[in-house]
Amino acid sequence: MIENMMELDKLKEECGVIGIYAPGLKNISQLAYFGLHALQHRGQESAGIAANDGGRIQYYKEAGLVQEVFTDEIIRRLQGDIAIGHVRYSTTGDACVVNAQPLVVQHKGGGIALAHNGNLINAPEIREQLQDQGAIFQTSIDSEVIANLVARYSTTLSAEEAIRKTMEQIQGSYAVALTLGQKLIGVRDPYGLKPLCIGKFEGGYVISSESCAFHVLDAEFVRDVAPGEIVVIEDNEIHSMMGIKGEKKAFCSFEFVYFARPDSVLDGQSVYISRKNAGKILAQEHPVEADMVIAVPDSGTVAAIGYSEESKIPFGEGLIKNRYVGRTFIQPTQKMRELSVRLKLNVLKENIKGKRLVLVDDSIVRGTTSRKIVDLLKSAGAKEVHVRISSPPVKYSCYFGIDTPARKNLVGATRSVEEIRKMIDADSLGYLSIEGLFRSIQMPGDILCGACFSGNYPMEVPRESSQYVFEKR
Amino acid sequence: MIENMMELDKLKEECGVIGIYAPGLKNISQLAYFGLHALQHRGQESAGIAANDGGRIQYYKEAGLVQEVFTDEIIRRLQGDIAIGHVRYSTTGDACVVNAQPLVVQHKGGGIALAHNGNLINAPEIREQLQDQGAIFQTSIDSEVIANLVARYSTTLSAEEAIRKTMEQIQGSYAVALTLGQKLIGVRDPYGLKPLCIGKFEGGYVISSESCAFHVLDAEFVRDVAPGEIVVIEDNEIHSMMGIKGEKKAFCSFEFVYFARPDSVLDGQSVYISRKNAGKILAQEHPVEADMVIAVPDSGTVAAIGYSEESKIPFGEGLIKNRYVGRTFIQPTQKMRELSVRLKLNVLKENIKGKRLVLVDDSIVRGTTSRKIVDLLKSAGAKEVHVRISSPPVKYSCYFGIDTPARKNLVGATRSVEEIRKMIDADSLGYLSIEGLFRSIQMPGDILCGACFSGNYPMEVPRESSQYVFEKR
Amino acid sequence: MIENMMELDKLKEECGVIGIYAPGLKNISQLAYFGLHALQHRGQESAGIAANDGGRIQYYKEAGLVQEVFTDEIIRRLQGDIAIGHVRYSTTGDACVVNAQPLVVQHKGGGIALAHNGNLINAPEIREQLQDQGAIFQTSIDSEVIANLVARYSTTLSAEEAIRKTMEQIQGSYAVALTLGQKLIGVRDPYGLKPLCIGKFEGGYVISSESCAFHVLDAEFVRDVAPGEIVVIEDNEIHSMMGIKGEKKAFCSFEFVYFARPDSVLDGQSVYISRKNAGKILAQEHPVEADMVIAVPDSGTVAAIGYSEESKIPFGEGLIKNRYVGRTFIQPTQKMRELSVRLKLNVLKENIKGKRLVLVDDSIVRGTTSRKIVDLLKSAGAKEVHVRISSPPVKYSCYFGIDTPARKNLVGATRSVEEIRKMIDADSLGYLSIEGLFRSIQMPGDILCGACFSGNYPMEVPRESSQYVFEKR
Amino acid sequence: MIENMMELDKLKEECGVIGIYAPGLKNISQLAYFGLHALQHRGQESAGIAANDGGRIQYYKEAGLVQEVFTDEIIRRLQGDIAIGHVRYSTTGDACVVNAQPLVVQHKGGGIALAHNGNLINAPEIREQLQDQGAIFQTSIDSEVIANLVARYSTTLSAEEAIRKTMEQIQGSYAVALTLGQKLIGVRDPYGLKPLCIGKFEGGYVISSESCAFHVLDAEFVRDVAPGEIVVIEDNEIHSMMGIKGEKKAFCSFEFVYFARPDSVLDGQSVYISRKNAGKILAQEHPVEADMVIAVPDSGTVAAIGYSEESKIPFGEGLIKNRYVGRTFIQPTQKMRELSVRLKLNVLKENIKGKRLVLVDDSIVRGTTSRKIVDLLKSAGAKEVHVRISSPPVKYSCYFGIDTPARKNLVGATRSVEEIRKMIDADSLGYLSIEGLFRSIQMPGDILCGACFSGNYPMEVPRESSQYVFEKR
Repeated sequence: MIENMMELDKLKEECGVIGIYAPGLKNISQLAYFGLHALQHRGQESAGIAANDGGRIQYYKEAGLVQEVFTDEIIRRLQGDIAIGHVRYSTTGDACVVNAQPLVVQHKGGGIALAHNGNLINAPEIREQLQDQGAIFQTSIDSEVIANLVARYSTTLSAEEAIRKTMEQIQGSYAVALTLGQKLIGVRDPYGLKPLCIGKFEGGYVISSESCAFHVLDAEFVRDVAPGEIVVIEDNEIHSMMGIKGEKKAFCSFEFVYFARPDSVLDGQSVYISRKNAGKILAQEHPVEADMVIAVPDSGTVAAIGYSEESKIPFGEGLIKNRYVGRTFIQPTQKMRELSVRLKLNVLKENIKGKRLVLVDDSIVRGTTSRKIVDLLKSAGAKEVHVRISSPPVKYSCYFGIDTPARKNLVGATRSVEEIRKMIDADSLGYLSIEGLFRSIQMPGDILCGACFSGNYPMEVPRESSQYVFEKR
Repeated sequence: MIENMMELDKLKEECGVIGIYAPGLKNISQLAYFGLHALQHRGQESAGIAANDGGRIQYYKEAGLVQEVFTDEIIRRLQGDIAIGHVRYSTTGDACVVNAQPLVVQHKGGGIALAHNGNLINAPEIREQLQDQGAIFQTSIDSEVIANLVARYSTTLSAEEAIRKTMEQIQGSYAVALTLGQKLIGVRDPYGLKPLCIGKFEGGYVISSESCAFHVLDAEFVRDVAPGEIVVIEDNEIHSMMGIKGEKKAFCSFEFVYFARPDSVLDGQSVYISRKNAGKILAQEHPVEADMVIAVPDSGTVAAIGYSEESKIPFGEGLIKNRYVGRTFIQPTQKMRELSVRLKLNVLKENIKGKRLVLVDDSIVRGTTSRKIVDLLKSAGAKEVHVRISSPPVKYSCYFGIDTPARKNLVGATRSVEEIRKMIDADSLGYLSIEGLFRSIQMPGDILCGACFSGNYPMEVPRESSQYVFEKR
Repeated sequence: MIENMMELDKLKEECGVIGIYAPGLKNISQLAYFGLHALQHRGQESAGIAANDGGRIQYYKEAGLVQEVFTDEIIRRLQGDIAIGHVRYSTTGDACVVNAQPLVVQHKGGGIALAHNGNLINAPEIREQLQDQGAIFQTSIDSEVIANLVARYSTTLSAEEAIRKTMEQIQGSYAVALTLGQKLIGVRDPYGLKPLCIGKFEGGYVISSESCAFHVLDAEFVRDVAPGEIVVIEDNEIHSMMGIKGEKKAFCSFEFVYFARPDSVLDGQSVYISRKNAGKILAQEHPVEADMVIAVPDSGTVAAIGYSEESKIPFGEGLIKNRYVGRTFIQPTQKMRELSVRLKLNVLKENIKGKRLVLVDDSIVRGTTSRKIVDLLKSAGAKEVHVRISSPPVKYSCYFGIDTPARKNLVGATRSVEEIRKMIDADSLGYLSIEGLFRSIQMPGDILCGACFSGNYPMEVPRESSQYVFEKR
Repeated sequence: MIENMMELDKLKEECGVIGIYAPGLKNISQLAYFGLHALQHRGQESAGIAANDGGRIQYYKEAGLVQEVFTDEIIRRLQGDIAIGHVRYSTTGDACVVNAQPLVVQHKGGGIALAHNGNLINAPEIREQLQDQGAIFQTSIDSEVIANLVARYSTTLSAEEAIRKTMEQIQGSYAVALTLGQKLIGVRDPYGLKPLCIGKFEGGYVISSESCAFHVLDAEFVRDVAPGEIVVIEDNEIHSMMGIKGEKKAFCSFEFVYFARPDSVLDGQSVYISRKNAGKILAQEHPVEADMVIAVPDSGTVAAIGYSEESKIPFGEGLIKNRYVGRTFIQPTQKMRELSVRLKLNVLKENIKGKRLVLVDDSIVRGTTSRKIVDLLKSAGAKEVHVRISSPPVKYSCYFGIDTPARKNLVGATRSVEEIRKMIDADSLGYLSIEGLFRSIQMPGDILCGACFSGNYPMEVPRESSQYVFEKR
């Protein structure tokens, strides 16, 4: 089987989290299910829901899409007032789903269910310290580190204080939804690296990685969780406390480039508008004479529309995506493997023959797929193919939860733009500038993280040699 | 579970068929697998492949998508020189897959594997005649009627002659791929109601419902199978004979409106160009002052681009589709059910707020979904919503293999355009005219079937009361 | 996987059939399920139930044990007044269950569901004749031949007459339960080779391969179906007609030796008593001085008790059977494979050490397992092992539905008793004589079939070269 | 579904454990698989294997029988030098298998895999203490308590010393197999309540709950692990140390009555011989005039043979067990439910009609099944049914890992023998005396635990009101 064929040559977000608070309603896990479904793009490898029924927590998690993992029967069993849900991109190679989330544990204060999006850069050190004190670990996920710290501090402190103390210890990115006692709690790292926001619906509240999950719950957007904030929903009210104050904000700019759904609003900014802006600025930065602007579907579509609007070159479709591409295929022979991009994309010959094309995509990671797409277009009769990328070259590894390949495999890290152009056989190649990207997001650059483009990390990160940190899973 | 959530309020095509001839290659069923995958949009309920290994036919068919049904192990077992594949939209309510295709039978001349797209309007009569002569039937699919007739005529005639005699008996629509002996045979009904075309690749041939399957096989389009033609591929050569001469051609126009993939070319006409033309003509027939043209994704996208080009009103995105919508969901409560369209579509508030929108879709069948979409847009702040449909109102049942609801459920059959407009709460509503549709397809109307719009059937059809024909399984 | 580990070196019965008639009750398929469960020993590879609801027949069949194949949901769906059930030993190597039973077909008179135990020796010839007349076949089971003949004769005759005419054509063994219209019909071949009997319970009737199925249904034994008889249950009454008169009866003696459950009564004879008699006569024919009589569990237990009673040598346990042996294991390495008998049998060292043992089993087919068991006992300290077999040597293939290996693999066909004794390393070896066997069954030898022992077939059989007949699927 | 139909009205043992040490061989998990299969009778609800590959531990555990849980693929992946296996009777009602074993954790000293049979009566207190110190728990099994203690003590002590300190803290029954580093360790509680023994085979060692697992591994019995002993297998040698000295031995006598397989030898005593002795002593204590001794298969068979030998009343079969009874059935209707014992047992009418029977079983727990069996026999014509039980009445709950019902449901606790006789409608009823039981086991009563019969617990146990301990998961 070819695993995870769903996206071609893209960076991968690690996770999506959701928390539902709805004591009066009788369908807590159904709400979590539909909410998670809306976050499915943030992780397709495993899904889980934990339901808190007066402190007693039941849960189910399994490899697969939300729709595959849960049945009516399972959802019916997960009763309670509060639910935590999680979708995950990466899973272990192991046969069991031990690393799937939410993590459910018993501590002094009772049961906790916890879902985490992000990466703690000092998890190995904390884990070692805790083991030196006699702790045991049953998974390799950071969430277990967080749960252990919270449990330790809870022996003498309130839940909120224990979380605050935990935040003082952990470094890295985290957006966490957790429940314990009668509380639903949302926590965001002091840089705000991972998104997290609050919604309200009739009968309850929702905390979600992205606002796109509110729509299906008929929920209103309330506000983003602030960097470093702890939000506690209890007795049908929202309470807030500052967990730890960050030196600076560093919202992940790649959420706007690719991860987030275009219908989400992150920290006040519409993702759709950012992407369209990116396309417009790209047209200003890298104009070209051409007959049609096309996108690599679906990731480049919004920017392509922006490029078209700005450049006045008409937008059209040149590539058709097969909508039924699942996660696995039978193993193709070598020859079929070379054709693998064809399983997903088909050229509209009639529409592009003899034309000069602007081909817009959101990013290039390894570059292998881009070459195949340009080839497809040219062999179908395109006269010229001008590739335009609506983000800067990806040159540095992310330490905060994005699954970037090793630097040597990042084409942006090892080759010049002209070398990449040759490699993908494009007639011209233009990347959006970092400034252009920040401008498209309509935020000042100093509250955005663009480290994967610039190497300018918001906090000290492990040296490249520290392989442990990179080891995903 | 809500069954078949994948498409909202659309007519359903019954099937897709494929035949592969590749005696030298060792991966016949792999080729069939990838080809079927490209035809997946023609049927998502069951999939099957039969491989002919020197007259001995092995097969596997099961409920599910192509990717779900087949494993490496199964594909490895299906060895041979010729393969027949089938995807099917409808399945019986029964637990077993008895009605899945291809149908594999033993007759006097050996094994036959047969895949059929279409509907025989006189199948009940023939079935009765055959039973009167002592035949037994194990399925309720028309293919078994065809196999029985071929077997009977084969007792005295050659395979080709037996097929020709069979064609004289059966009435209705059919595109058939079958294999027996060393032959791959393609047959198309005398009206050409169902599409069927021939491709050639290094080492073999392919017969397919649509040309979009050729791409992944690296096959060249050779030609369409002509209405009434029998095409025999044997000894690495194509032979043709006329099976039965039709009075007139009647290519299904709904293939161009919705069923076929935009990257297919049917009977010489690009589906993509037809749809874009339809959008343009729609803009001429039903102009309106507006700020943005948006589509119901994905079915309305191409026509929307055409409408935008013709009207000069900019094209934009107003609705985002959840790409992870599978065939089943957990059973929602009543309230959630009302929100069901939200599982699939999300509004881009920022992009449409305060705007006058042209909303383009390909067709309206029951009308229930259209109302929900207009509501979504208006409650998200759209100032006006002008609905434009790139085909005429569907008013009549199809007897040729399209799953149309009973007439009383066809909103186009029971209400005027103005009534429909009110029902869906649009500010204006315009349908493409029949003439406009034919013009968009760039064929004369007398070689197209538009019976579902006009009631003008290409052959005599059973009266509405004859329920047997309609009974959907 | 090692397939079908459930029994060691035994002949295999092909099938068990059941028919339930209970128009008033609402749980027809539940009754069939529990009845089939009692017949599970007759076939463990597939199971199926068809329910006749006023002529409309629904069914479900799948590979696996009765308990694995059916769920509450499936049983609930199979509603009706009459049900037909089937368990099957052999399945095709193919991935699909096309050859599972009951076979369900539509013919002129409506639906038929049919379950068959036995083997038609002239099936290939009839099949060919039918194909010459234009018939098609979708399976390779004899039931389809029967269904075709019944369908053909039904065009002019009543159901009963059609069955009678069919019986005139087919040769071989058959016990058939079928339903059509409002009737449950049981048919037995004119020699009575396969058992079939009738039971009555409150609210209905049951036709079953063995009477052991009556117990769980709280049914009373009524009588056996006579050789050549057609029994029709309709309007809550039993009607009988003679289908075809046989020249002689030939009840299968191996049913008494091994196939049937000891709590069944076949053609008036208790299986348990036959087996105990066999043990007693064996003790008379092959006495030996020994300390303990033990059995190969479970097949030799009853005869061992008989041997003990007759010989006055105490009965004890020397071998313990692992009760959790299912159909499949992981693939063992070569060394483990040699130990495979140990997965099923364990020696009671303490009980046999230093003892002279009489080891009783019902039959030896290939002889490989017997050797391993004798080895186990000796290496655990048994002083002597005297093997006693409660049936004569199996020397000839069965043509009537028992899965016998090719003659060259039948140790009884290729070696003398003394050679077998050496091969299995026993201190002495004694087989029951044919006369002794017949005597144990308490029937005259001329109404029993002992062809697998004597080669004295009740009818002319194909020559050994005709492989088609033997081809086990 | 009716859950766990496999045994009728019996006490349930909680678990079986196995540890394999075989650094040179390449099939460590295959050995564990076959060993576990031999322990399947100790738990049928879940199975798991963990393989230690130089300190890196991989594992797989799932609900189901050993044969159902593991595939070739999974076994192939579990590579290493040491393996731990576990079968479990009870599982949580939850959908997930979080409580299945072995438990695998990371602690300061690396990975640990641990399998536990038994019950810690002070687990709740220790759990609370550990939580007070900040520990978290992810399961509700005692093994996690043990792992936490070992981890805590390991921060300053060697593995062996940490285990010794752990043994000082925990109270109750335990037979544990664990691996960490390069070691396989076996630990038995100071009373020896749960059995554990050591075997040796070519290339390695095995630690097992019962010696019956040695047979399939071609292993020799070495010795039992002594009460309170810690056995360490490392560098291909066995090392022993005393963990904690018990005041007295208290081997579980119910292992001899029912749990253990008859071919096991526990603490020097053959289970088979114990059971046969029990039957003989029972005949002395409760003689009766009768025609035949029969057993409730399979649990009463050995004692019945003993009873027969002592009483000279011939042994025979009166009840036939359906060998295909799996864990689940479809839900029967009320009427069928009453017949449920018939799904498992069938009467041999011919063999018992008119006879005076001695019916031997090993124990009566609730008594409901016994009544049904006596009814079956009488309605089949038995003249008298004298029930003989080869153990004393079960009157007290077990606190050491046997799943006893609440006392009010123990028929032996609430009724006199005469009342039970009436309830089950027997002509006479005799239980083995406690002294007789101890005598049958051939050990002095003061080294056996018979608390479930006498209430004489080997250590102080929680009062009946402490429900937590009893809560069966």
